[in-house]
Amino acid sequence: MTPLDAVLSHLESGAERALAQLVEFASIPSVSTDPAHAADMTVAAQWVARTLAAVGPITVRTMPTARNPVVYAEWLGAPGKPTVLIYGHYDVQPPDPLDKWTSPPFSPTVRDGRLYARGVSDDKGPVLIPMKVAESFFAAAGAPPLNLKFLIEGEEEIGSPSLESFIEANKELLRADLVISADGAMWRPTEPSITVASRGLAGLNFTLTAASKDLHSGRHGGSVANPLHAMARLVASFHHPDGRIAVEGFYDTVRELSAADRAAIAAIPFNEADYLAQVGAPPGYGEAGYTLLERQWTRPTLEVNGMWGGYEGPGQKTVIPCEAHAKVTCRLVPDQDPDEVVRLITRHLEHHQPPGTRLTITPGDHGTPAAHIDTGHPALRAAAAALRAVYGVDPLIVRMGATVPIMELFKRHMNMDTVYFSFSTSDEDYHAPNEFFRVIRLREGLAAWARFWDLLARELA
Amino acid sequence: MTPLDAVLSHLESGAERALAQLVEFASIPSVSTDPAHAADMTVAAQWVARTLAAVGPITVRTMPTARNPVVYAEWLGAPGKPTVLIYGHYDVQPPDPLDKWTSPPFSPTVRDGRLYARGVSDDKGPVLIPMKVAESFFAAAGAPPLNLKFLIEGEEEIGSPSLESFIEANKELLRADLVISADGAMWRPTEPSITVASRGLAGLNFTLTAASKDLHSGRHGGSVANPLHAMARLVASFHHPDGRIAVEGFYDTVRELSAADRAAIAAIPFNEADYLAQVGAPPGYGEAGYTLLERQWTRPTLEVNGMWGGYEGPGQKTVIPCEAHAKVTCRLVPDQDPDEVVRLITRHLEHHQPPGTRLTITPGDHGTPAAHIDTGHPALRAAAAALRAVYGVDPLIVRMGATVPIMELFKRHMNMDTVYFSFSTSDEDYHAPNEFFRVIRLREGLAAWARFWDLLARELA
Repeated sequence: MTPLDAVLSHLESGAERALAQLVEFASIPSVSTDPAHAADMTVAAQWVARTLAAVGPITVRTMPTARNPVVYAEWLGAPGKPTVLIYGHYDVQPPDPLDKWTSPPFSPTVRDGRLYARGVSDDKGPVLIPMKVAESFFAAAGAPPLNLKFLIEGEEEIGSPSLESFIEANKELLRADLVISADGAMWRPTEPSITVASRGLAGLNFTLTAASKDLHSGRHGGSVANPLHAMARLVASFHHPDGRIAVEGFYDTVRELSAADRAAIAAIPFNEADYLAQVGAPPGYGEAGYTLLERQWTRPTLEVNGMWGGYEGPGQKTVIPCEAHAKVTCRLVPDQDPDEVVRLITRHLEHHQPPGTRLTITPGDHGTPAAHIDTGHPALRAAAAALRAVYGVDPLIVRMGATVPIMELFKRHMNMDTVYFSFSTSDEDYHAPNEFFRVIRLREGLAAWARFWDLLARELA
Repeated sequence: MTPLDAVLSHLESGAERALAQLVEFASIPSVSTDPAHAADMTVAAQWVARTLAAVGPITVRTMPTARNPVVYAEWLGAPGKPTVLIYGHYDVQPPDPLDKWTSPPFSPTVRDGRLYARGVSDDKGPVLIPMKVAESFFAAAGAPPLNLKFLIEGEEEIGSPSLESFIEANKELLRADLVISADGAMWRPTEPSITVASRGLAGLNFTLTAASKDLHSGRHGGSVANPLHAMARLVASFHHPDGRIAVEGFYDTVRELSAADRAAIAAIPFNEADYLAQVGAPPGYGEAGYTLLERQWTRPTLEVNGMWGGYEGPGQKTVIPCEAHAKVTCRLVPDQDPDEVVRLITRHLEHHQPPGTRLTITPGDHGTPAAHIDTGHPALRAAAAALRAVYGVDPLIVRMGATVPIMELFKRHMNMDTVYFSFSTSDEDYHAPNEFFRVIRLREGLAAWARFWDLLARELA
């Protein structure tokens, strides 16, 4: 039995225990965007630190940031071997809307081979996997085949605002030959895939007010601006009817897709009608001139994530509300600067503000540029071989519409490349009610990470 | 001392007791639009019946309707004298948004000469006044100078859906020489006024959906329609940029203002800038071609009273929500049919529905046409004389932007005219947080109603 076989066997026999630990981890409501959960963030960081300390002779540090601590761990007992920095996060999205959950979001529940809980797919399940793999290497093979560093942060779901300064302040501590991200779900559950690019993120919030208080719509109707009408006009002004974003300058730095890019995306097996059926959406939507996958992976978006004002209760309330609110985020593509995008939207709002209203703009979370890894990188070969060994098929090379700030941050500050090696899949309703993680993916992930490290130890040597 | 003087003196000495009764009445959360308050509606109806029964030798009946009962009372002991039917309602608007109230909406509190509570101005304060006046006539003058009927309903704030069939089924019971409405606030607190016209009301609610569940805005952004964008586009399509309503056919039956109408409105002392400062709204809004008062009194409106979807909590949530909602009501002017207006808006929504979405339209509350009384009506002379006696100045003759269904209903079904004789004023934040009723208006109202009845007994004889 080779040391790798011993590790794989140890992982297999420990999979039940890993699931139990995930249930424990996912019970902690570590919602980073909500100040009401500040204490839960500490509990989650302590859970990660304790779990890492238990994997073997590894050094664990809980390092404060301006908001939530980074849990850092390292084992450097393989001199001459490559060093990998494993990235993940212990924070989760808010569970709203609560009434749409079948089981409570922080009471993890297994149904039909899926573990349901907020954060279980993004990314408490995926980030637990490398911890358990390190443990099995220590237990069954004496030691891991390469040097390990872990960086588990608590602010990913709010755009990782502390991470950049943390990296700048800890470059030597974090130095590695490769970053492996446990975050950044695989594309879909039907086959393995490796993500080589991600979109960026930028956002802001704004409020429109008119009268200083809600007014009776009969007594005052026709006299003062209705902020809901003004909000509708402003939000409608963000897009042309053909789906193109109407904010002046928004596309100025956006490169058009090359023929090769389009061909590569067209070669990926994907059925638009099946996709729309899966998410339950009617056809007919989309920026003109692009296929659905091109739009999802390579085109920037401007999305209103929340918009509200006035009466939301049962029946009618004949009121002219005094305020209307909106939250906006954009997904960015290469060469778009998040701060510049926020400036362009701000200018657009100020320019299109309807008469009779007041406009207040507040910044969103920290912005993130788009990022990518060279498709010829040797670590991608190792990752592909590990996935092939587990799944029996070659992984698809795909892009990601979503944003994980670390790829761009580590590249820009430390010239380190990032491989996404997550075992959640994009259909698992993270950022939505009834988020789940497939229990089988826990087993597959454990085996794949062990193989990946084993291959990297040689490939990067 | 004349009998009227005796009544006025009795009313003055009983004013403190009347205020205490109003506090009791306004403590009942009789929110007719919210099914959670069904039991409170019964409590409020019982309170009205008990209070009416206590005024003297009067017959009180609590008469069921499809929703909330009508409290009916009558005293017909003045043969040969005119009969008046007094109208009011015991239901109130929802108290939302609760966090904007300085004192709880159903804990009536006096501050600076104002009684604060939901419904205290609209119209529990005003409707209590004629009950107390009847009581004083019995106590201090032996009997009222004319025959009295009371109709106090519990569905005014939801468009009085049961009132029409109630009137049709009880025409003989309700027959009177005049309807006096305790509901329908005076125009403003600076001088007395008599309202001779009111706008109508019609509405509907609609929902847009796209995907069957909330989606991650990174993974899916660009792929499926965002119902908030679609909602903004639809709501923005309701109005032209100049404020004119863009729903096809909306103005087809609307008569243009005559030169005489415009001159009468222009003659009323009114300062647009002062009004905007009072409600705290910036200038610059309004349908082109009309003064503010013309718009408020004589032009139809289409207002979105509530619009919502997606994330409303703190921070960001990068979600494409699966649904967006809106509530719409229109204020109507003479010759607009409420049902036809709802049909036109429905057709507009169906015609403008953005691609990639599903549209669901649900009916709003029962519609009401606009209504008016002939400005030469003898009852208006009596009302004006009563107000002049109390306030020392001639009342302004004004219109009302708001809707009180009864004027149109009693005219159409029974050819009875209605005089609005309310002692709330339109600045008292009814339908908004911190609704209040000026305590001094309770005293003024008691004296004015007593004088009005005394004059009517002769004027209509």
